[in-house]
Amino acid sequence: MKNNLPVQITWHPCKQSKVPVYQQIVNFVYKKISSGEWNAGTYLPAQRRMAEIFDVNRSTVVSAMEELASYGIVAGKGRMGTKIISDTWSLMLPNALDWEKYINAGVFRANKRIIRMINRFEFAPGIARISTGELDPRLFPTTMWSQVLQKVSKENFTFNYLEALGAPCLRRVIAARMQKRGMRVSAANILVTSGALQGLQLISVGLLKSNSVVYAETPGYLQSLRVFQSAGMKLRGVSMDKRGIEFWKLPANDIMKQKNKAFLYTIPTNHNPTGVTMSLSRRRELMEFCNKRQLPIIEDGAYEELCFNNIPQSLKSMDENNIVIYLGTVSKTLAPGLRVGWLVAPEPIVQRLGDVKMQMDYGTSSVSQLILLEFLNSGFYDEHIKEVKQELLIRRDNAIAVLKKYCADIASWNVPDGGFYIWMTFKNNIPIEKLFFAALQRKILFNPGKIYDLMSNNSLRVSYSYLSCREFAEAMKKFSEIIAELSIQHK
Amino acid sequence: MKNNLPVQITWHPCKQSKVPVYQQIVNFVYKKISSGEWNAGTYLPAQRRMAEIFDVNRSTVVSAMEELASYGIVAGKGRMGTKIISDTWSLMLPNALDWEKYINAGVFRANKRIIRMINRFEFAPGIARISTGELDPRLFPTTMWSQVLQKVSKENFTFNYLEALGAPCLRRVIAARMQKRGMRVSAANILVTSGALQGLQLISVGLLKSNSVVYAETPGYLQSLRVFQSAGMKLRGVSMDKRGIEFWKLPANDIMKQKNKAFLYTIPTNHNPTGVTMSLSRRRELMEFCNKRQLPIIEDGAYEELCFNNIPQSLKSMDENNIVIYLGTVSKTLAPGLRVGWLVAPEPIVQRLGDVKMQMDYGTSSVSQLILLEFLNSGFYDEHIKEVKQELLIRRDNAIAVLKKYCADIASWNVPDGGFYIWMTFKNNIPIEKLFFAALQRKILFNPGKIYDLMSNNSLRVSYSYLSCREFAEAMKKFSEIIAELSIQHK
Repeated sequence: MKNNLPVQITWHPCKQSKVPVYQQIVNFVYKKISSGEWNAGTYLPAQRRMAEIFDVNRSTVVSAMEELASYGIVAGKGRMGTKIISDTWSLMLPNALDWEKYINAGVFRANKRIIRMINRFEFAPGIARISTGELDPRLFPTTMWSQVLQKVSKENFTFNYLEALGAPCLRRVIAARMQKRGMRVSAANILVTSGALQGLQLISVGLLKSNSVVYAETPGYLQSLRVFQSAGMKLRGVSMDKRGIEFWKLPANDIMKQKNKAFLYTIPTNHNPTGVTMSLSRRRELMEFCNKRQLPIIEDGAYEELCFNNIPQSLKSMDENNIVIYLGTVSKTLAPGLRVGWLVAPEPIVQRLGDVKMQMDYGTSSVSQLILLEFLNSGFYDEHIKEVKQELLIRRDNAIAVLKKYCADIASWNVPDGGFYIWMTFKNNIPIEKLFFAALQRKILFNPGKIYDLMSNNSLRVSYSYLSCREFAEAMKKFSEIIAELSIQHK
Repeated sequence: MKNNLPVQITWHPCKQSKVPVYQQIVNFVYKKISSGEWNAGTYLPAQRRMAEIFDVNRSTVVSAMEELASYGIVAGKGRMGTKIISDTWSLMLPNALDWEKYINAGVFRANKRIIRMINRFEFAPGIARISTGELDPRLFPTTMWSQVLQKVSKENFTFNYLEALGAPCLRRVIAARMQKRGMRVSAANILVTSGALQGLQLISVGLLKSNSVVYAETPGYLQSLRVFQSAGMKLRGVSMDKRGIEFWKLPANDIMKQKNKAFLYTIPTNHNPTGVTMSLSRRRELMEFCNKRQLPIIEDGAYEELCFNNIPQSLKSMDENNIVIYLGTVSKTLAPGLRVGWLVAPEPIVQRLGDVKMQMDYGTSSVSQLILLEFLNSGFYDEHIKEVKQELLIRRDNAIAVLKKYCADIASWNVPDGGFYIWMTFKNNIPIEKLFFAALQRKILFNPGKIYDLMSNNSLRVSYSYLSCREFAEAMKKFSEIIAELSIQHK
């Protein structure tokens, strides 16, 4: 019979320490294991019991166990107790290689803990994802997809290394589409990337020194990433109003100091996470501002094709002096799994970043590129976007109605003109971490605002792209109930 | 009528300067343009004439013009003269943003110049590629491919973001294959990468500090990359004999100093570029050596499946203490354009690198993953490899016969037991840069040895994978004639 009596713990975390309490718990368990005191197979006390022993909130214990589970050290939770399972963790072997030293050495920072958790729970069964930044898989055009693949399967194409800059035919087609949107570019200005995120990655290591500065909207998508920080850059937030980035708040001295080594990053259209679209006059003013200061712009156009009305003029199409690098992708419109995006930039920049890309992954999957090419050439892509936009519009209207019904008293929000996102801010202080775990227990997963802005701990990103109207309504009803319960507890 | 009289030049490079002469020429032209002295449309003198004016070899001028052409600044060559074409090069606009500052700022180093040239010329029409490290596209299994895509087109699969670690089904299938090769691993130990190169990239930023050291065979594939150097690591070469890496020559003090922050990188089977396969006893000794010193190993298995006889035991399958990270790929066996590889490692390493990957490209193309899965499950992959190996064996035998016929007097080489490569070393000094350009003029492209080892300037990598037997024989015949001509000039 298995002996699963839990170990006895008398240790306490130090609440005055600068090390977060959950991290202290992680370290404590870790040391017990690495010292050989606790073997694989050892059971820890129930989480509720550990919370009592350590004199901390249950959620703190949950966080610590999540962290340990993510390293494969423990498994199980709840009343059955948490079990130490690590026997791949080579630390436990005497004199063995200390992989942990390597794990902590890499210059690339770990994703924020909350994001790692979200990433994991996104794949848990039965979870209602009310913040997810992707299209509902049920909107995936399976018939078109099947036809495109049938076509591709008959093409006499070999899948050797392509030019790192991308398949020439695809670069031409993308250039033509960008021209239609008013950009004065040719295929030589297009670099095919493995998604828009790779574009940022290439810029971070290809065009910036460590200690460079990237200015970005706050709250903002970029704050949820570590790509620039991992390469040693600083991220400075710039606030937004309803017309977009408040660029005049950028510190003038700072920009002068950073001349020739800074970028401004913006999502002018259907901003992630706020849903704001920059007004035309703001766009013009921003371009003038950046031109005067020779501050180049990274324009992220990920959600541009998802405008319910006309697509506003992109910054790149106003870019007479070539100060804008534009990022495009089909991840939000067609299929993130294709991992195809593109970057529009002056040719020397394309050459430089293509050379870096060559050294990173030898180019983007050629079958992905070929499939996208076929989607574009067949007209399927545009047809599909039209349908997606119709559905998104219905879902947005539904989402706004649902929020009015369940959240009017407790929160405010914007009404986006396209894209996926509604930015919801609570009127009163809500213990948002608590809410996160409480919602998770009821199988609702959301992205707290602080992912996008460390200061904005009272907001969350709501997405109407992933759930059907009915699912969204149900999830938000449950969500509002959880909030009500918590608010009572909170008071 | 176009005025194409060339500009007058009186400037001379400084031969005592530490700046290479070709770079001085690049800088000179660049300044003339950026100062506005030379406009787009300006013609430079013929390259032969420039060589006279600058008092340098023609090849130096060619190098400089290549460099300028790669930035899109000049075009054309030979007697028609070189023309300044850059009008996207925004430097020429007064007060414009200085992109060059950005291009030179990025921490990621530019590829070696010769490699950038090779990358470009590989796509030039009519070039005989006698060194190319990929399979002949005519060996691509088009019928299987078509069937796989037909199958995939009918599958009800959505192409949303996958888990960054890779599609769980593919990870399981790869784990099972690795188990068959003697590795004690499960799906949790597999990370799907966008090619094996990305595996190196992830290790460089995820597990190493800048100033760490990577030991690697020399000559070696890793020396042709900048991936570790760009992340601030040092690369230290270790010599090889016919049985593999001479690990005992690793400086003991250095390894002690680098404890917990170094890696040893090796391609034990069908080594690139030398074709050497490490003997079993050497493998055992190496494992013992690295275990004692707690020096972890990156084992690159890219060519492992291409052994003409039995596949030797991998280091990972001897890896009782979990010190080996294994890299696999289908780029050399099936299609580099799929961009799918994998990494086998202890689970905490897989988790850490998966988190970094998530931040870099959100995972590998899911359609590529699905196609590979289908290739593996259908048995097509193994069937295809069998055919490829038969053909490679025929080509290797042919290549050795051809070398004996044309090069026996001037060079020596090894006979590989698999993979793509023969390492050919000239008996006398050959002006290999001159040979490179002379061969290029006759439409033969080869990889000089110094790509893989700065010291080995008298060797070249010969590959029998890309050309048919007849094409290879013709190219080598021509090549030996060029060598003969050059040798006479040289004497």
